[in-house]
Amino acid sequence: MPECFADRLTAAILAKDAPACVGIDPVLERLPAELLTQRGAGDRSNLEASVAAVTQFCRQVIECVSDHVPAVKINSAFFERFYWQGVRAYYELVEHALEHGLIVIGDIKRGDIGHSSSFYAHAHLADSPFEDCPGLAVPDAVTLSPFLGSDAIAPFLDVAREQGRGVFVLVQTSNESGAELQGLTAQDGRTVAEHVARLVDGWADDAALTGSCGYSSVGVVVSPREGTSTQRLRELMPRSIFLVPGFGAQGKTAGQVKACFKPDGSGALVTSSRGILYAFNQPRYRDQFGTNWKKSIEQASRDFVAELRSVVMSGA
Amino acid sequence: MPECFADRLTAAILAKDAPACVGIDPVLERLPAELLTQRGAGDRSNLEASVAAVTQFCRQVIECVSDHVPAVKINSAFFERFYWQGVRAYYELVEHALEHGLIVIGDIKRGDIGHSSSFYAHAHLADSPFEDCPGLAVPDAVTLSPFLGSDAIAPFLDVAREQGRGVFVLVQTSNESGAELQGLTAQDGRTVAEHVARLVDGWADDAALTGSCGYSSVGVVVSPREGTSTQRLRELMPRSIFLVPGFGAQGKTAGQVKACFKPDGSGALVTSSRGILYAFNQPRYRDQFGTNWKKSIEQASRDFVAELRSVVMSGA
Repeated sequence: MPECFADRLTAAILAKDAPACVGIDPVLERLPAELLTQRGAGDRSNLEASVAAVTQFCRQVIECVSDHVPAVKINSAFFERFYWQGVRAYYELVEHALEHGLIVIGDIKRGDIGHSSSFYAHAHLADSPFEDCPGLAVPDAVTLSPFLGSDAIAPFLDVAREQGRGVFVLVQTSNESGAELQGLTAQDGRTVAEHVARLVDGWADDAALTGSCGYSSVGVVVSPREGTSTQRLRELMPRSIFLVPGFGAQGKTAGQVKACFKPDGSGALVTSSRGILYAFNQPRYRDQFGTNWKKSIEQASRDFVAELRSVVMSGA
Repeated sequence: MPECFADRLTAAILAKDAPACVGIDPVLERLPAELLTQRGAGDRSNLEASVAAVTQFCRQVIECVSDHVPAVKINSAFFERFYWQGVRAYYELVEHALEHGLIVIGDIKRGDIGHSSSFYAHAHLADSPFEDCPGLAVPDAVTLSPFLGSDAIAPFLDVAREQGRGVFVLVQTSNESGAELQGLTAQDGRTVAEHVARLVDGWADDAALTGSCGYSSVGVVVSPREGTSTQRLRELMPRSIFLVPGFGAQGKTAGQVKACFKPDGSGALVTSSRGILYAFNQPRYRDQFGTNWKKSIEQASRDFVAELRSVVMSGA
């Protein structure tokens, strides 16, 4: 049996003493000017040059952060925008991150039924069954939407079980409109997000998906939101690791982030994307490192980890 | 301004007198044996041969049905299973179907926030901004998941407005577990599906997305489900065209399908996938056409349309 995803993730977090994940959400327009010029992607209208610039940037981000954080989350949307050429780059970056010893989360937010769900699970979470691309790399875990219910999730759990991989199911998202459905209160007094939480806890209650660390390979995406109780979600899903988006840029408070962790400091992985990817545009890094954008990114990942440690250790 | 999607779809349905859509969900294992052998995809473990066989099959399905139905729905999952090579085939098939005068729906069920949503919208619904692939074909409309609320849908509506395209938002799905969340009753007595319906009707209430046919380019995916009122959803979303999955294979009754239409026979587009794609395996067609699988598929698309007409005209 392959090692359980929850155990691999927990070990990686402990090894780097950092429940930190860098979100790879590359926006062409924000890449270092030097890179755009060098790759001929300055005018943004050349697909090949754009993909080449984005890929080179992401490869270097991975190299800059891999000594400091245990995980990266690669967002499929930022690659699909470049059609199949972008999808190829996505898989190449998954491979590059795995080769650098990182846990890789594919942020794909898929959700479909029957055969479709099974094909998505195989495309995004399973070893390649094809002899002409046997070594194709897939992420260790993917994000999923719960709108279609259990049978849409099941094929991913089957792959996760067989291949030691995992999922993170959307429970509470960070966008302003997220509450329109997720925040609805059902007749039993529970919100839709809490109902999703109960479903997730059912899926997570599977010995074949549970690691010796005590956590399940069925994690969740939870963004603390004002007016909701993160603590309540934490209690409803004791077995699930929380993937917490938007540290920094999305302005969560330390207390909100801290509530995603258990008292022992385990149980969450916090993501920062823009704050690290574009650190070279922030005065605090630009003043120090000038045009050496890689140094800025590396330092920002160190600072992210340090800040996160202080949040987890704090009494907040 | 480009012509409104709702008008184009309505005109296409009228022109063929058929509110019918063929679902392109190709399962390699079920393709005609002749095609698998011919393409060297018999052992299923060769990616290139598999993609070639699937692409050839789908191209021919499109050619067989294009005289009989106004629209096809191409499911991304069945192509993503072949990684970027499959994604390239997906875009090629979108182009092939458009060239055959069909309305094309990309069944992608995406749903994300902010930048991600915008990139998905551009990747899947907008004309290519790249000079080195200016003619890349995208679908006329795509399916979307509503779990993240309005701001996740907005970027798609922006593209739809500018480029005369459309969306179909999941409201009630055909899978058994669909009711787990969609069927929850909120404190106001409405189900989650009905809450989605109210959100959708808000998005659809936009003059720039409304055609002279009276319908909006914001459609919905509604699968009639026992114990729920399709009539109620039809009333909540008077402006939206219903994309109704699973005619035939998923065993909806005539009355259930009929309830998706308005009394004048407008307002819905019904999809059949397996019943048409694998018609050559059904005794009724095999006995008539033998190994001529294209004839079987063509006849099945005719029969689908005839059956659908009788449902819409019936007093059911």
